[in-house]
Amino acid sequence: MSSFKTIEWKDDKVVMIDQRKLPGEETYIECGTYEEVAEAIRKMVIRGAPAIGVAAAMGIAIGALKTDSGGRDEFFSQVKSISEALKGTRPTAVNLFWAADRMQRVLDNSAKDVEGIKQDLVLEAKRVLEEDIETCKRLGRLGSDLLEDGMTVLTHCNAGALATGGYGTALGVIRAASEVGKDIKVIATETRPFLQGARLTAWELDRDGIPVSLITDSMVGHIMSKGMVDAVVLGADRVASNGDVANKIGTYMISVLAKSHGIPFYVAAPVSTIDYECPDGASIPIEERDRKEVTHIRGHRIAPDVAVFNPAFDITPGDNVSSIITESGIAEKPFTSTLKDLKK
Amino acid sequence: MSSFKTIEWKDDKVVMIDQRKLPGEETYIECGTYEEVAEAIRKMVIRGAPAIGVAAAMGIAIGALKTDSGGRDEFFSQVKSISEALKGTRPTAVNLFWAADRMQRVLDNSAKDVEGIKQDLVLEAKRVLEEDIETCKRLGRLGSDLLEDGMTVLTHCNAGALATGGYGTALGVIRAASEVGKDIKVIATETRPFLQGARLTAWELDRDGIPVSLITDSMVGHIMSKGMVDAVVLGADRVASNGDVANKIGTYMISVLAKSHGIPFYVAAPVSTIDYECPDGASIPIEERDRKEVTHIRGHRIAPDVAVFNPAFDITPGDNVSSIITESGIAEKPFTSTLKDLKK
Repeated sequence: MSSFKTIEWKDDKVVMIDQRKLPGEETYIECGTYEEVAEAIRKMVIRGAPAIGVAAAMGIAIGALKTDSGGRDEFFSQVKSISEALKGTRPTAVNLFWAADRMQRVLDNSAKDVEGIKQDLVLEAKRVLEEDIETCKRLGRLGSDLLEDGMTVLTHCNAGALATGGYGTALGVIRAASEVGKDIKVIATETRPFLQGARLTAWELDRDGIPVSLITDSMVGHIMSKGMVDAVVLGADRVASNGDVANKIGTYMISVLAKSHGIPFYVAAPVSTIDYECPDGASIPIEERDRKEVTHIRGHRIAPDVAVFNPAFDITPGDNVSSIITESGIAEKPFTSTLKDLKK
Repeated sequence: MSSFKTIEWKDDKVVMIDQRKLPGEETYIECGTYEEVAEAIRKMVIRGAPAIGVAAAMGIAIGALKTDSGGRDEFFSQVKSISEALKGTRPTAVNLFWAADRMQRVLDNSAKDVEGIKQDLVLEAKRVLEEDIETCKRLGRLGSDLLEDGMTVLTHCNAGALATGGYGTALGVIRAASEVGKDIKVIATETRPFLQGARLTAWELDRDGIPVSLITDSMVGHIMSKGMVDAVVLGADRVASNGDVANKIGTYMISVLAKSHGIPFYVAAPVSTIDYECPDGASIPIEERDRKEVTHIRGHRIAPDVAVFNPAFDITPGDNVSSIITESGIAEKPFTSTLKDLKK
């Protein structure tokens, strides 16, 4: 496990490490309302598809807990609008919708009174967190078999403890390999514009004693051409049913480079990240974020006031993916059939 | 021409726009000694292979002018050590050595006395600047034929007026196309770690009225996959005799992406950038720069104190290059023979 807590439920509050302040400050913020949780997701206090799923579940629970309506119908409709507010925070991560659906099932299947359902929602949100950690550990153990002693693994963005309940998907695979004594070194891309690699992955691995070297995104091709990368392992924000992967902007570029250098390219993601309703990558909405993320870095202007593109994610065709590592097994091509087999 | 002066000789001083301060401040620094010029090159007040060549020539001239020895032999040996100091500032750009050789030829071929040679060195340095501008204009005109009206061109780093005497190589091609009325749009990569794209290319094009959009380096693959790029045009710090190109880190990555998307990849560089003594890219020394360029941005820490790679350049194999645009003609494959034909 990581040596810090990404998100937890504490005294009817949602406590999160403020990922915007890392690595400079390790501070935690408390959300006492669902609006605060939604704002934390939108402002990227917490990010990473699985962590967003946990936060959304806890946001719905805290929102439900704080409603003061008496009747079941009114309560149900209030929870529905809380759920919609949380689902509207970020469009690409499917775990958000998965978590909201899961909370909705508690409502749908409960015969209890409002107070009873409130407690069940809180229990369910806590369960989402616990299960996420167990899922990542299982996924990590399975994936670690793909990594050999002495390998150098390149990762992009942060698919670590900070992106999940506390163990990580891509970094969970690396953690698990390290835990069984394999000597694994990591090369982390800084991941502009939001610098999740420089700020979060480098911090998380360094803190947990896993050797990490930092590069700019522009160095990936050069580093690969020098034979310095044995495998790529990274996460996913959404996997389409054909194996196309939506993940942090830059992932597609890395997949093309890995392919051209004959380096295996592994995607690590829980089954909850697979969107079986989604036929392919072209159907996944790509969030366009604030232009200031490109023209400014950490609040400091680096560019004149020119036009900017700022897609937060890109689509990697399944064809560029060697394997998709999940807690239920490792899917190989053709993904259209192998991903179906993982469905619970 | 650009609407600002990158470098000029003024009242026996070398005046340069301080490129570290752009785009926030447009300030100019005056170098009155060769040591100040060497420091300006090392600290990247001025950068870009052709501009470094001009700065080195002017640095040698100013150093020679300020010597106070009487004898020819002593003067020659002092100029030699001044020249060595300037050649030691940055290892990759071949124009530095080219400019120093050119100044040396003034010494070798002159029968004048020391005062006369000093004036000839100043004249030669001024000529290096004027010729660079003429060279870039010729190169730009030739290269502009490769760009069609309505094209969007992706460029990396800054191979513009700021990287040369005042017109640009890659941006010279774009300037020339714009000057004949073609509607050319530019996508500039920000070019981490030193942000030459965000700070310099975006500033330069915006100031000169050429439409430019800024992206992070991680977006190149995505933007290409969306069909948004018609051609890549960028510069070179050194071209080996087989057509391998040393250029800003990230260039190789862009070349692989361009190839995989069927997008033409043009390198624009004056003949002085071709190193005929150098057989291939593997023989070109790659400068490794300060780790703080990666862990910090504009002085602000963005990463914990972990290991870092920071190669300033990478090698693009000639095989990934569509054409090399020079002032003497456009070289196509096989470069080993076509580059030889350009030799003056």
